Amino acid sequence: MTSLDAIAGTAAPGTLYGIGVGPGDVRYLTLRAAGLVRTVDVVAFFAKRGRQGNARGIVTPLMGTARQELRLEYPVTDEIPAEHPDYQSQMIRFYREASASLTALLESGKSVGLLAEGDPFFYGSFMHMWRRLAETFPVEVVPGVTGMSGCWTRANLPITWGDDTLAVLPGTLAEDQLVERLRNTDAAVIMKVGRHLGKVRRAVEAAGLLSRAVYVERGTMPGERIAPLAECGDPAGAYFAMVLIAGRGRQL
Amino acid sequence: MTSLDAIAGTAAPGTLYGIGVGPGDVRYLTLRAAGLVRTVDVVAFFAKRGRQGNARGIVTPLMGTARQELRLEYPVTDEIPAEHPDYQSQMIRFYREASASLTALLESGKSVGLLAEGDPFFYGSFMHMWRRLAETFPVEVVPGVTGMSGCWTRANLPITWGDDTLAVLPGTLAEDQLVERLRNTDAAVIMKVGRHLGKVRRAVEAAGLLSRAVYVERGTMPGERIAPLAECGDPAGAYFAMVLIAGRGRQL
Ligand SMILES: C[S@@+](CC[C@H](N)C(=O)[O-])C[C@H]1O[C@@H](n2cnc3c(N)ncnc32)[C@H](O)[C@@H]1O
Ligand SMILES: C[S@@+](CC[C@H](N)C(=O)[O-])C[C@H]1O[C@@H](n2cnc3c(N)ncnc32)[C@H](O)[C@@H]1O
Repeated sequence: MTSLDAIAGTAAPGTLYGIGVGPGDVRYLTLRAAGLVRTVDVVAFFAKRGRQGNARGIVTPLMGTARQELRLEYPVTDEIPAEHPDYQSQMIRFYREASASLTALLESGKSVGLLAEGDPFFYGSFMHMWRRLAETFPVEVVPGVTGMSGCWTRANLPITWGDDTLAVLPGTLAEDQLVERLRNTDAAVIMKVGRHLGKVRRAVEAAGLLSRAVYVERGTMPGERIAPLAECGDPAGAYFAMVLIAGRGRQL
Repeated sequence: MTSLDAIAGTAAPGTLYGIGVGPGDVRYLTLRAAGLVRTVDVVAFFAKRGRQGNARGIVTPLMGTARQELRLEYPVTDEIPAEHPDYQSQMIRFYREASASLTALLESGKSVGLLAEGDPFFYGSFMHMWRRLAETFPVEVVPGVTGMSGCWTRANLPITWGDDTLAVLPGTLAEDQLVERLRNTDAAVIMKVGRHLGKVRRAVEAAGLLSRAVYVERGTMPGERIAPLAECGDPAGAYFAMVLIAGRGRQL
């Protein structure tokens, strides 16, 4: 029987790794992700101002001591809406600088693992680095357990059965858009709930789905909270929060 | 630094585990899934007649020798369409018998790990066992990397950006249904393509998306095949196949 470490493997010099770290519980890293977190020369991660960085927190048990880290700190978070030109220009400058920092490390021959919450290619900030660097440097992307898989697991909610369709919707959509899309699907996941929770709740209710909707905050992380959406009176939710509506297809 | 084995943990007696084994590559099992595959008393899995069982094949490097296994063999696979009453009655009998076999093992105090491809709560056969057993026995579900995450990673296709919506559609839907739903989403994943490939291709073309669609067969597994859907002339695809259409939202 092969050891977990042998299966997990190690990092190669001058390579950028997009490491999906899963929904929050360190046990939900893949073997490959864990092998890379332990062996890359530099562990890079995005973080909000004044915070540890959620992805960085997830991998703490794997980090050991004296590792080189690169903290990439967002200039803005929720203060400016994403549609605002100031948000976009600040973020573009930030991503340009971040990719320059990664470039310098990669050119010096270091292996760099950029942590991504959940799966890197599913609404991930890593994608903005991948877009800039994947043509110049060797890149390996390690898929991860998405936040939604972590959340529906913890909520005890098999999400799709048989021929169910699933709609993944950002809570940033306009209310009427949310209602229309919720009416045209069997199952739904509403991500990026945050300050949109009140609107999301109204849309779910208008689509006739309030009694089936579940709110999950920080799924699989410390401070996890799971409640029927109908019982969430809060006007705003957490950043790490989503609403789940399970399908009711063929149950054999 | 904690060892991978210590993080992965072990199985408890009399407990049913729904173990997501990811898209195919054994390195994409989570630490928790790997820990359970190695320590449950019985490794159970679904398999098609005459086949090894795909999930069982994925975990082979972790199995060691002299493990107790429970093979649950489907009575029908693709010969009868899922809408047919014969399919449904045969499958209901099969799931009833399978849950009786699991019950006998759990009542004798054994820990049983039922393998599930990808994530157990996302179109998984495990759900039919969970429905029957979760009220009677302790159950732990281990979320997994979905087949779609494995496929969009291998296809080098970040699937959703910014405020993109994603529709997950089974290829079993009627052609006009597929077209309509494809028209109302930014990104799409069409699962369960198999013998529906010809219809899926027509629907994608009618929705004006053929030039953006990618066909992925056996993503992350031996025999992987990735091609523009426009270049897939085959009337039928593999069972482990899907079509991906990436969103084009905010790229900062
Ligand atoms: C920028 S997206 C990143 C998604 C991530 N790449 C993934 O695969 O899940 C951030 C959103 O993911 C959702 N999310 C991710 N992990 C979560 C968790 N553990 N609990 C609740 N929501 C989560 C929240 O809706 C959050 O607003
Ligand atoms: C019954 S569903 C099970 C889905 C699984 N629970 C998951 O999380 O991906 C089976 C379908 O998943 C898709 N699938 C799963 N793994 C795949 C892979 N590695 N490559 C291509 N398709 C895959 C195919 O569309 C297949 O028809």
